[in-house]
Amino acid sequence: MKISFCCKDTKAEPWLEGLHAALPDADISVWQPGAPQADYAVVWAPPQQFMDEQPGLKALFNIGAGVDALMKLKLPPQAQVVRLDDAGMSVQMAEYVSQAVIRHFRELDGYEADMRAGTWAFRKPRARADFTVGVMGLGVLGARVAKALTVFEFPVLGWSRSPKTVEAVPTLHGSQGFAEFLAQTRILVNLLPLTPETENILNRANLSQLQRGAYVINVARGGHLVEEDLLALIAEGQIAGATLDVFRQEPLPAGHPFWSEPCITLTPHTSARTLRDESIAQIVGKVVAMSRGEAVQGMVDVQRGY
Amino acid sequence: MKISFCCKDTKAEPWLEGLHAALPDADISVWQPGAPQADYAVVWAPPQQFMDEQPGLKALFNIGAGVDALMKLKLPPQAQVVRLDDAGMSVQMAEYVSQAVIRHFRELDGYEADMRAGTWAFRKPRARADFTVGVMGLGVLGARVAKALTVFEFPVLGWSRSPKTVEAVPTLHGSQGFAEFLAQTRILVNLLPLTPETENILNRANLSQLQRGAYVINVARGGHLVEEDLLALIAEGQIAGATLDVFRQEPLPAGHPFWSEPCITLTPHTSARTLRDESIAQIVGKVVAMSRGEAVQGMVDVQRGY
Repeated sequence: MKISFCCKDTKAEPWLEGLHAALPDADISVWQPGAPQADYAVVWAPPQQFMDEQPGLKALFNIGAGVDALMKLKLPPQAQVVRLDDAGMSVQMAEYVSQAVIRHFRELDGYEADMRAGTWAFRKPRARADFTVGVMGLGVLGARVAKALTVFEFPVLGWSRSPKTVEAVPTLHGSQGFAEFLAQTRILVNLLPLTPETENILNRANLSQLQRGAYVINVARGGHLVEEDLLALIAEGQIAGATLDVFRQEPLPAGHPFWSEPCITLTPHTSARTLRDESIAQIVGKVVAMSRGEAVQGMVDVQRGY
Repeated sequence: MKISFCCKDTKAEPWLEGLHAALPDADISVWQPGAPQADYAVVWAPPQQFMDEQPGLKALFNIGAGVDALMKLKLPPQAQVVRLDDAGMSVQMAEYVSQAVIRHFRELDGYEADMRAGTWAFRKPRARADFTVGVMGLGVLGARVAKALTVFEFPVLGWSRSPKTVEAVPTLHGSQGFAEFLAQTRILVNLLPLTPETENILNRANLSQLQRGAYVINVARGGHLVEEDLLALIAEGQIAGATLDVFRQEPLPAGHPFWSEPCITLTPHTSARTLRDESIAQIVGKVVAMSRGEAVQGMVDVQRGY
């Protein structure tokens, strides 16, 4: 069995060591142009040339949660795209988003800035009932985030393209449920997959339908957010601020206005990192199952795009 | 029925309005020296003179979570001290502490400072297994905090004076369990009641037994922490930093070294605020029950001090 490793911005050696240790009989190597045909590939944002040179690939294992970069390529005809089953990402996402929601609701940024300036001052406690958190996207990550927020008694509302059920969380779906979802939401969390339908979904028309003073948390993809619309709505007071982990261009370019907007908290695409050991164990399990002709979880619907 | 209101740093009118609305036949007034005898009192940090002039009080309702200020006074002989049953405080405490734990574990302070400085840089993800959160004090607040942290898959360990059971959280107790508790703890959360036994418990001898680079979250009382020991242990690298909501003197005095220590995050005793409407509803329910001779929850053991 041959496995090709082609992952942008990723140190290859520890991945190859981990895969070798678990699959000692496999031939595992870092892809280079002109490399021999492989059966399976472990990829992150590979070039089109990789796909063109590997027409015999049986499966592509994507080591991030989002497959949008892969969906833009012409894939080998037989290749199945397989995502990781969580692999430690959903708990990271739950903690990142819970932290951002709590920080905004409790005004902890403001309190800490006051204290740093030597000012001991109270703010009137806000009513939790006024801070419905709307979670867009109810896959593994979105469902986990929504459930975590119920622990803190926030009213939580979910929205997804197709109907989904999340324990203890009311949900809406499709275009018919979208206006109601936006109208009820005070803190918006985006965890949608990036597809042609969801690109630019966080735009002026939609963000204007949120409750006045809403807060935006984008932890999906930069392509979901129309960045200039967010900045304008913050300036107008419709949006109180945002926590952003993803950007249209990453790293965020020097001179981008986000760097200096005080109402926006930034992190460098770190909300849910791929954890190597968990990911290797999952990929190995799936490769073994597929090589035996068994079904595996996490097959991406290439038509749908996620 | 006469009710006297004697609460330091608290606007009386909305409390009196709320109590009047629920108990229209009661005579409710703000205490002043020489005021007539009352049956019940709603108090926060009252003076000794109040107690001396109200020997006939049947019960004192404390509107904060900690009764340490009351325990320092000589109380009327028949007066029972009654605490609130949560009243919206435990969820606030769970969110405040979860936020502080996540922020430290995920290095979000550092990431945000990097980004604010225009630096896009990753840190190696930390292993959750290395960050056992030790929760001292397993009353209503401590138990709720410990359970919330399990949602994020942190190893959580509880410690209390007497044996306590918290679902899904291993616990130790008493002096015999204290050394093991400290040795396992990387993030220490203090939610103990302040009593003569627990005063200064966060001192050099105990904090030195935590894992190297431990983090301290004090949300109980300033009197638990020996402030100069914390500062020295931070300077020595034994303690990585702290989130502090309570202080030996509040407001924190100008010039106190905490104001300028970059490893310490400060908030002005706001981790779990008394929510007026919830508190009034509980006090009214307990007053009515007690006036009928019924048992109520939340009786403080004055000998034990909490």
